[in-house]
Amino acid sequence: MVANGKANGDFHTSYLYNPDILHGLDWKSVQSKVTPFITNENPGEDYFLVRPLQIEDYDKGYLQLLSQLTTVGDVSKTDFEVQFRKMQKAGCYFVTVIEDIRDSRIIGSATLVTELKFIHKCGERARLEDVVVNNTYRGKQLGKLIVLTVTLLAKKLGSYKMSLDCKDQLIQFYKSLGYSLEPGNANTMMLRYESKL
Amino acid sequence: MVANGKANGDFHTSYLYNPDILHGLDWKSVQSKVTPFITNENPGEDYFLVRPLQIEDYDKGYLQLLSQLTTVGDVSKTDFEVQFRKMQKAGCYFVTVIEDIRDSRIIGSATLVTELKFIHKCGERARLEDVVVNNTYRGKQLGKLIVLTVTLLAKKLGSYKMSLDCKDQLIQFYKSLGYSLEPGNANTMMLRYESKL
Repeated sequence: MVANGKANGDFHTSYLYNPDILHGLDWKSVQSKVTPFITNENPGEDYFLVRPLQIEDYDKGYLQLLSQLTTVGDVSKTDFEVQFRKMQKAGCYFVTVIEDIRDSRIIGSATLVTELKFIHKCGERARLEDVVVNNTYRGKQLGKLIVLTVTLLAKKLGSYKMSLDCKDQLIQFYKSLGYSLEPGNANTMMLRYESKL
Repeated sequence: MVANGKANGDFHTSYLYNPDILHGLDWKSVQSKVTPFITNENPGEDYFLVRPLQIEDYDKGYLQLLSQLTTVGDVSKTDFEVQFRKMQKAGCYFVTVIEDIRDSRIIGSATLVTELKFIHKCGERARLEDVVVNNTYRGKQLGKLIVLTVTLLAKKLGSYKMSLDCKDQLIQFYKSLGYSLEPGNANTMMLRYESKL
């Protein structure tokens, strides 16, 4: 286990979690999946920066990026900051973004959420949520980059497994990164309550 | 939104979350799904008690029950209590159990976990995890009872949706409770790290 943002109070609190834990991820284990080879610390272009979500990202187009994925709705800066601080305090949210530092825009994001269990020796499992890459940046492997970054981060944090729910057309993409549909046990079911929007 | 255990400090701390929030769930909305009609407050037999997990449940067979579901491994009482307190502090874990008070055994359990989002107006989604009922208690609708209890609890807590991952043979059961496989978007994919056990 590695100290997360909550446990380690000496990082700049504008980060959702401690950026130090993104150093030294086990990219060797997935090297064959990424050609040309890039990592979160060497993301292929010197103007890409992979880092934890920051509270300032409200003004860097983070929510506009998420709106490429699903409905965001009206979220004021205060709403955003309140939710950000709740997540930071909880210590189980690892929202990770790619910034294009040329114009200070968030162009990719993926969320790792960890969940405590009693099963598996009081283990911790991980989930991949809300993956999105700005569709004007195709061909730079940024989808792979952001998904593998949080996948390797979950491994480093000690999770025993990581799961995701996805649409049919994304199955091949996730298979290429090491995820699989387990035979007979690969169903996501949903119940939607009355919409809040 | 309803105050959960974390926000409301006046309940007995042996509970994982505030038992008061289990009162007055919207059973009317699911009445047609349960025949004969039972609820968490009237579970069909006077010796069944539906309540939040308690720290004392380590000695009431809770982990033995979970081992009917999957690998639990060696979990000492201290391990259990440490994990219990972490979950209690986090405030997003709603492990709910059925006790047979005749012999003080835990005979059913389901976990609701809530997750904070920026999407959907900084909404909250819910997940159903680790559903298990002692298989010597068949025919008493305890599976329905425990799943609907946490499903209605998530609604009360303000979640915009609740999801679950399940094996093929459980699809019909969850359909009968209101869950659905959404066309083209019902895949669970998994990546397992080196086993901890």
